[in-house]
Amino acid sequence: MKINEQYAKLPGNYLFSEIARRVAAYSAEHPDVKPIRLGIGDVTRPLVPAVVEAMRKAVSEMGRLETFHGYGPEQGYEFLRNAIAEHDFRARGTDISPDEIFISDGAKSDCGNIGDLFSIENKIAVCDPVYPVYVDANAIDGRTGDYLQASGKWSDVIYLPLTAENDFVPELPASHADLIYLCSPNNPTGTALTRKQLSVWVEYANQHGAVILFDAAYEAYITEPEVPHSIYEIPGARECAIEFRSFSKTAGFTGTRCAFTVVPKTLIRQGQSLHAMWNRRHTTKFNGVSYITQRGAEAVYSQAGQKQIRADIAYYQNNARMIREGLKQAGFSVYGGVNSPYIWFHAPMDSWKFFDLLLQKAHVVTTPGAGFGSRGRNYMRVTAFGEANDIEEAVRRITVM
Amino acid sequence: MKINEQYAKLPGNYLFSEIARRVAAYSAEHPDVKPIRLGIGDVTRPLVPAVVEAMRKAVSEMGRLETFHGYGPEQGYEFLRNAIAEHDFRARGTDISPDEIFISDGAKSDCGNIGDLFSIENKIAVCDPVYPVYVDANAIDGRTGDYLQASGKWSDVIYLPLTAENDFVPELPASHADLIYLCSPNNPTGTALTRKQLSVWVEYANQHGAVILFDAAYEAYITEPEVPHSIYEIPGARECAIEFRSFSKTAGFTGTRCAFTVVPKTLIRQGQSLHAMWNRRHTTKFNGVSYITQRGAEAVYSQAGQKQIRADIAYYQNNARMIREGLKQAGFSVYGGVNSPYIWFHAPMDSWKFFDLLLQKAHVVTTPGAGFGSRGRNYMRVTAFGEANDIEEAVRRITVM
Repeated sequence: MKINEQYAKLPGNYLFSEIARRVAAYSAEHPDVKPIRLGIGDVTRPLVPAVVEAMRKAVSEMGRLETFHGYGPEQGYEFLRNAIAEHDFRARGTDISPDEIFISDGAKSDCGNIGDLFSIENKIAVCDPVYPVYVDANAIDGRTGDYLQASGKWSDVIYLPLTAENDFVPELPASHADLIYLCSPNNPTGTALTRKQLSVWVEYANQHGAVILFDAAYEAYITEPEVPHSIYEIPGARECAIEFRSFSKTAGFTGTRCAFTVVPKTLIRQGQSLHAMWNRRHTTKFNGVSYITQRGAEAVYSQAGQKQIRADIAYYQNNARMIREGLKQAGFSVYGGVNSPYIWFHAPMDSWKFFDLLLQKAHVVTTPGAGFGSRGRNYMRVTAFGEANDIEEAVRRITVM
Repeated sequence: MKINEQYAKLPGNYLFSEIARRVAAYSAEHPDVKPIRLGIGDVTRPLVPAVVEAMRKAVSEMGRLETFHGYGPEQGYEFLRNAIAEHDFRARGTDISPDEIFISDGAKSDCGNIGDLFSIENKIAVCDPVYPVYVDANAIDGRTGDYLQASGKWSDVIYLPLTAENDFVPELPASHADLIYLCSPNNPTGTALTRKQLSVWVEYANQHGAVILFDAAYEAYITEPEVPHSIYEIPGARECAIEFRSFSKTAGFTGTRCAFTVVPKTLIRQGQSLHAMWNRRHTTKFNGVSYITQRGAEAVYSQAGQKQIRADIAYYQNNARMIREGLKQAGFSVYGGVNSPYIWFHAPMDSWKFFDLLLQKAHVVTTPGAGFGSRGRNYMRVTAFGEANDIEEAVRRITVM
């Protein structure tokens, strides 16, 4: 009996556990202080009335014999897949059909499980800094080589630096990449790729037979017209890209759990349809999302639902503006926050040290950039999720620190 | 770029798709006939009032700023893990602590994803007949060798025959097995292992360093005192077994999605804790179950909830009794249905042929045993899920056929 030995290679402390540990230690010593948490990217506004009403109705349906729903289609109910195809794709001139959309319990699950489709021999490319789940999931699968303690990097991973110098736009890799993870609007930098910048990657993937795994979880925060909402706005993307979307940040579903992944039928590798493969994976190792949750997600697309979620997104966008402007006034170099709920700013020292300083002097919890990769070691991530008066107060405290 | 070539090896037609196809074809030709469906193991009774009330309350909480819940713990909320540990384990004298319980969206997901913990070099053993997901998930992972069209078996899988001759009790394998899938009460045979029979396997696993993957999804249907409700009732199981449980058949959650998996902290292989590994997997490739759903699952354990779900289970158990007795009177050799919602009976011909005959002559949809493996080719599975008058009518039609 042999275990999967990859687990033992994974570095110990998960970023957010370490943050929680430090905050708990500080709070234990200073019980009178109430830190403002701008660390974890979790929404704070409640579910909107249209969603609440739809879910309440669905709960009642589930409680009556005549309207009860047992197993649904593993891929998701048509009512939701149709609504997504119509509003998120066709309305933007993007040609994605309902049966290319797979409803799931979360983009994190899908980003992790998508590795099932690919040989472990593939070379992955990720940005540095990066959302840690992409790398950890590939490490579990055995696709990353060895973890190098000194650099905090994996031996077989191609890292694409995101720096102030390259405007946080990843450059094409020097060596061949098979699986390319791109996240735009980006977590953690809060910056976003324009159509032109993303086209470079679609062209590369099609030329090299690579597959782009495109994480668009923050799509709802885009404000600039040159930033695409979906990779399928780029010609050729249907032949090389899988897109991950989520209701978490769009409609406050972090605790309600609903997301979707698009695998176009025109995405073929080695003569096999990745759509057919994901369909097989989804029907074999998954059993669909709660009917109640799917009715809630459907309501996001109603006229009332759209109006209500846009108001919440505008609320967070205004928070982002306050943070951006406040930190700039305080003299920091600030990035992101225009097409994203994340603000990324330059730290005057090591990011874990600055984390401690901000906690101790300003009583504000941030996320140290080092947690996202070596290129983040002098940056901090701040999220715009939270109540406006807390955000205002946090910015004030940092400014006068 | 290389795909996972295992997918191409998977045999094409999934059992239930083929059944749906045949029923649709028959119905198209006979629009006046309304077949009674005893094929798919899906519950029909609605969610009980205690669950509906709890979920309605949780939906309201999610709609208010003060009581909104964002990301929960990936492993599940303590309120639910505590309720499970208390009612499903401690109350039966079984020593499982709340933090050995991982809440998930389904036993199918967990049974599929558990493979992530193990090397692909392990040899798996499954019963024949068997719930197809165990084998297909291992095939995707690359643990099953090649699919042999002629026999419908995989070259590297150890098959443990379940036959009338061995009372559907799997015998220890002749060659070494690393990962052993056991399902009791069993899908599809409807039979269950006694404490003594299960002890043989726990002893084998501990002697051979194997791991038992124990599927107890039908535990709520057990009526006989010698049948254990959990593998942890067997001494030594904490050192060799992972247990999968679900609210699907216990509380009608097939469309609501909640389950849990127990990985004891005392389960160690190659010096590594499988509990720690599963915790890492769960936090890396999963993001927890809906707060609303978890509140619904918690209500299953309330006094009212227990009384209500027991009434529904008794309803299905009475259906099982009707099927068992009716088929026996009709002259069939009938198994299962005493500790399970499934009845397994001997077919007088090939099971797909008998499926067609039952559909055409009795207008009853069953599941052909061949869909579960070669040893099922002369058996049929019937489920006790459904409305009592439909079940009664289906049995009558088969009897007079």
